[in-house]
Amino acid sequence: MQRSLEALPLTNSMLSEFELINKYFDWGAGIGDDCALIDVGVHQQFVTTVDTLIEGVHFPVDTSPVDIAYKALAVNLSDLAAMGATPNYFTLALTLPNIDEQWLEDFSSSLKALATEYNIKLIGGDTTKGMLSITINATGTIQGVALMRSGAKVGDGIFVSNTLGDAALAWQQIQNQKIPSRNLLTQFNHPEPQVKLGQVLLGVASSCIDISDGLEQDLSHILSHSKVGASIDLDALPLSNEVAQYIANTGDWCVALAGGDDYELCFTVPESQLDTIQSIEKKLGVVLTKIGVIVESGLEIKGLDKTCQSYQHF
Amino acid sequence: MQRSLEALPLTNSMLSEFELINKYFDWGAGIGDDCALIDVGVHQQFVTTVDTLIEGVHFPVDTSPVDIAYKALAVNLSDLAAMGATPNYFTLALTLPNIDEQWLEDFSSSLKALATEYNIKLIGGDTTKGMLSITINATGTIQGVALMRSGAKVGDGIFVSNTLGDAALAWQQIQNQKIPSRNLLTQFNHPEPQVKLGQVLLGVASSCIDISDGLEQDLSHILSHSKVGASIDLDALPLSNEVAQYIANTGDWCVALAGGDDYELCFTVPESQLDTIQSIEKKLGVVLTKIGVIVESGLEIKGLDKTCQSYQHF
Repeated sequence: MQRSLEALPLTNSMLSEFELINKYFDWGAGIGDDCALIDVGVHQQFVTTVDTLIEGVHFPVDTSPVDIAYKALAVNLSDLAAMGATPNYFTLALTLPNIDEQWLEDFSSSLKALATEYNIKLIGGDTTKGMLSITINATGTIQGVALMRSGAKVGDGIFVSNTLGDAALAWQQIQNQKIPSRNLLTQFNHPEPQVKLGQVLLGVASSCIDISDGLEQDLSHILSHSKVGASIDLDALPLSNEVAQYIANTGDWCVALAGGDDYELCFTVPESQLDTIQSIEKKLGVVLTKIGVIVESGLEIKGLDKTCQSYQHF
Repeated sequence: MQRSLEALPLTNSMLSEFELINKYFDWGAGIGDDCALIDVGVHQQFVTTVDTLIEGVHFPVDTSPVDIAYKALAVNLSDLAAMGATPNYFTLALTLPNIDEQWLEDFSSSLKALATEYNIKLIGGDTTKGMLSITINATGTIQGVALMRSGAKVGDGIFVSNTLGDAALAWQQIQNQKIPSRNLLTQFNHPEPQVKLGQVLLGVASSCIDISDGLEQDLSHILSHSKVGASIDLDALPLSNEVAQYIANTGDWCVALAGGDDYELCFTVPESQLDTIQSIEKKLGVVLTKIGVIVESGLEIKGLDKTCQSYQHF
């Protein structure tokens, strides 16, 4: 996902990122999920995903190298999580305006700490000179059948992990020269990739996606890939105190529905597996909230009296 | 490799790219060859490589999207070639200042044509908004034992494919507002990755590298990884008519020794395999020239009376 801090020239905004990819880069090799599947054997699949973060676009200028490195890898781990993959290795393409050893030291330490935590190895890279930008390509393996966007069935419950809108509210406050609370900043700079959750959802969830572009937009990918609709209950959305207070004051539900940058998982669960969800909550210490159900068609958000403008990459 | 068209601030140029990678990103997982090795089974290895091209740094502003796409993939194919890999799949991270459909159409068509030619599949990607930049992560498989930088032995012959310095001379002419010849421009914009050559060198060459950073610098990687030296015969270097004429006029051998952007292979061959080289030349229609031999230590370039400044990424 991406936000513009700088007013870059935008001569033609008719294409969204999804349209762009569909139009120019879907050559029939299976583009469309958070990760690409690579068959490597009878009982094993590799998945791979790539994300670029650009200074002034995906993170504010002067963000600490610790936070940049963390987020650059975490957003890729989040994509692996959405497929239920076990992280395996990644490559790093790093574009730097200059060599600042302290910056590199901090960046490297932070990246290594997160990589170690999730047992993912850095196996290659490229460094170039230019505006600060980080591209990570992360690859994982799937034990079983990968979580896809395409498996949701009518009647399945729709769940999200933890809370919605914290990172988006933090970003809004930063843009307005306010200092976000510690909780909001943590969600913005150090989103926890739901890798373990994704893994235990293998064989349990019927579809899954990470909601880095915002719940409404990412859920709609599940709906289009699964050829179903959804009915969402606004009052059921899990919110932190800060976001609940903000919405109470402003009526702006869009921060939770379309804010993006949440890196939580949205997934669907058949009736028969609902009991499993409770045991997963206890086992992982993660909050999983049912926010609606899969229906025949459309996307109804009960209680919402306006539409949100979802995040657009261009 | 990289060249600076723009005068970007360079506050600390003490670290070369190699030092930077060694210092901050070599975490013991095998960084150091053109590609990273990934063990996936008993008789198969994956190799993966990543390269970023930035407008104004790696290609001139206003380079055609056809040429940009070609080169972005070709430089990665060249890295796969240097390991003897068979191209398998790649991901694309594309940063664009705006959406220009004609540009994308041309870029996509060119990328697809080259991908089809080398039977490599685009399996994922990311698009972001910012200064034009392309990062490709390409992965291939190895049939046998990969070509490494570390296998050169004293007495081995040192070979390069085709001619040296054509792309560097083209670049120099472009910077001086001259229009390069068709041959030089082709070598600059459409370097042919030596994928087939790399594959047939498996089991034949004792070490191999692509010379995208220039012969002198890239050969020195073979020497340090193999803990040997080399004696190169200046008169043996294979040159196109244009480069030979340029050197005759200027005495500037550095265009061939350190120009970079050649995307040819430099490899070493044991005495026992020298006959095989001739049959490879005939089979592939590629010119392979012996330019020297591996010795105990040092890098002697017979006939050169000055040192060249090799390409530095920072």
